[in-house]
Amino acid sequence: MTNPVCLSVDAMGGDHAPEAIIAGIDLFAIQANGKVSKILLHGQQQVLEPLLAKFPNAAKLCELRHTETYVAMTDKPSQAIRRARGSSMWNAVRAVKEGEANAAISAGNTGALMVLGKVLLGMVKNVHRPAIAASWPSPDGFSVVLDVGANVVCTAPQLVEFAILGEAFARIVHQKESPSVGLLNVGTEDVKGNDVVREADQMLRAAHLKLNYAGFVEGNHISMGRTDVVVTDGFTGNVAVKAAEGTAKLAAMVLKESLMSNWLYQLGALLSRGAFLKMKDKMDPKNSNGGLFLGLGGLVVKSHGSTDAEGFANALHVARRMSASNYMEVIQENLSAFADGQQEKTS
Amino acid sequence: MTNPVCLSVDAMGGDHAPEAIIAGIDLFAIQANGKVSKILLHGQQQVLEPLLAKFPNAAKLCELRHTETYVAMTDKPSQAIRRARGSSMWNAVRAVKEGEANAAISAGNTGALMVLGKVLLGMVKNVHRPAIAASWPSPDGFSVVLDVGANVVCTAPQLVEFAILGEAFARIVHQKESPSVGLLNVGTEDVKGNDVVREADQMLRAAHLKLNYAGFVEGNHISMGRTDVVVTDGFTGNVAVKAAEGTAKLAAMVLKESLMSNWLYQLGALLSRGAFLKMKDKMDPKNSNGGLFLGLGGLVVKSHGSTDAEGFANALHVARRMSASNYMEVIQENLSAFADGQQEKTS
Repeated sequence: MTNPVCLSVDAMGGDHAPEAIIAGIDLFAIQANGKVSKILLHGQQQVLEPLLAKFPNAAKLCELRHTETYVAMTDKPSQAIRRARGSSMWNAVRAVKEGEANAAISAGNTGALMVLGKVLLGMVKNVHRPAIAASWPSPDGFSVVLDVGANVVCTAPQLVEFAILGEAFARIVHQKESPSVGLLNVGTEDVKGNDVVREADQMLRAAHLKLNYAGFVEGNHISMGRTDVVVTDGFTGNVAVKAAEGTAKLAAMVLKESLMSNWLYQLGALLSRGAFLKMKDKMDPKNSNGGLFLGLGGLVVKSHGSTDAEGFANALHVARRMSASNYMEVIQENLSAFADGQQEKTS
Repeated sequence: MTNPVCLSVDAMGGDHAPEAIIAGIDLFAIQANGKVSKILLHGQQQVLEPLLAKFPNAAKLCELRHTETYVAMTDKPSQAIRRARGSSMWNAVRAVKEGEANAAISAGNTGALMVLGKVLLGMVKNVHRPAIAASWPSPDGFSVVLDVGANVVCTAPQLVEFAILGEAFARIVHQKESPSVGLLNVGTEDVKGNDVVREADQMLRAAHLKLNYAGFVEGNHISMGRTDVVVTDGFTGNVAVKAAEGTAKLAAMVLKESLMSNWLYQLGALLSRGAFLKMKDKMDPKNSNGGLFLGLGGLVVKSHGSTDAEGFANALHVARRMSASNYMEVIQENLSAFADGQQEKTS
């Protein structure tokens, strides 16, 4: 796409907002170097103006849109949703609806962002429920896991829709030519699992989609990158990605503690410091930050609530890549083929 | 318990059986040093006798029980179950039923072991379905996760039963005085999750069990050791533990590759080799090998199919600790209290 990309940012969402958000935009402005024409920055003018004065690269890119209210990170989901209307998050998403921006980005309350995404942008045709897609490191890059929390219970057709949505995401954001898609299960034999995954497996095999479906995968295959995309319900996906995060953290903790336990190890660690930094970088959740709400009628990127500037810059890159792509058209072919097949079965 | 412990081993189950099994018993015989009086060894005499000749410590402890047939690792679940009757696995479990041995241990086909455990040993009173409990490293020791694969779909009362079974397991095998128990969910707020986990949470709060219930935990809390026991259904638990395994493997791969990438890092790695070994040891699945089928009318320990000698020795230690404990009595108090409460509700 040659059109200039415009992004719409909720400056007030996130544990370290708005400082980390503005610092992240500043970093992104340098990295993206002209690939984004403008960022609409939604939040309290009195708070954001002094920050923009400190970050000149961000200031050059941003157009400040004052909004007095915002959704607090400590709000309970029900509160958050009540407060969402007219907030900085609301206005960030509304700019996408009104065609002013290509994508909205927020590190704020996930539940509220999801609900107002649905209210303002509606769903893509032939998608029943949105899914959150997350990226997780694998030996050759990243695995895309979805859903990681939008739907705690899923039907088989929903899982097929997630496969279609996630496959296009992997193609665009992780630049895989023909991403393979696996269905998460407790074993790879076709008798394993519950009724929903077995039905989804049958559907994926029968639907004749333009999609490289590889069958069942197991939990360890996420980090091992057995397939580029791992499809599951929002309960299992959320637990799996968090279990992986916890383990990466434990491994780093144990290693650090062992290395500090005597001076010889410390000396060795000093010499091979570069290697540790490489490992840390590979396993760093910041580098895979930027989950997407797939299936909505517009692009909404969810950054980790606890993100720092670097992580937020990464979420902006995800939004930029998706904005510059023809994602919405790409998914329509498979979605229509699947919906037509489903209709034939019931008619 | 002052009575001598007798264990019953399926020598033919496992990817590296029977070599790894006999080598594991040999290692265990040295480590356990007199704490086990006898091991009944079930399998093909013509194969096992030459092996026992090579492992004198194992030979001293083992009483060979010839069995011609065995369940192959490559058998499909349905085949495996048909072949199970009269196999080495069958005889290993039957010795527990007949009071000859305190616990059975197999690295063979999980599905077959589960089915014949139920057929031969029945269920503990007030437990509806057995669960497989696995141990996973945490900063201070191990977290117990259950179920990791016996039940892909669970009801809320089943999750409460798992909490009771797992709590006693953590107390005995990991020697925690009052293990805390968490219920795996996608968030810690009480509105999160699906109906089953919310109902189980209410039940655990209301049941007045002798149990340190800590509420909901998330996937990352498994490796972080937020609670000593993590209760979940067999689908989610299987995915979570495998996701953690995959991530530990990825972290080790990435670190090794980085350290080998130039001579300075290699030198550093050489100096701090001891620290890496400590980390490797901590994250090594071998050290947490030995899952238990909890809820059966007798003790059955499932070793990882791919186990080596060291891992199998560890599974034997789990069996020994459980055998020397009063596990069956320990769980009865909580199980009865819960069953009585459930009955009152329905009457």
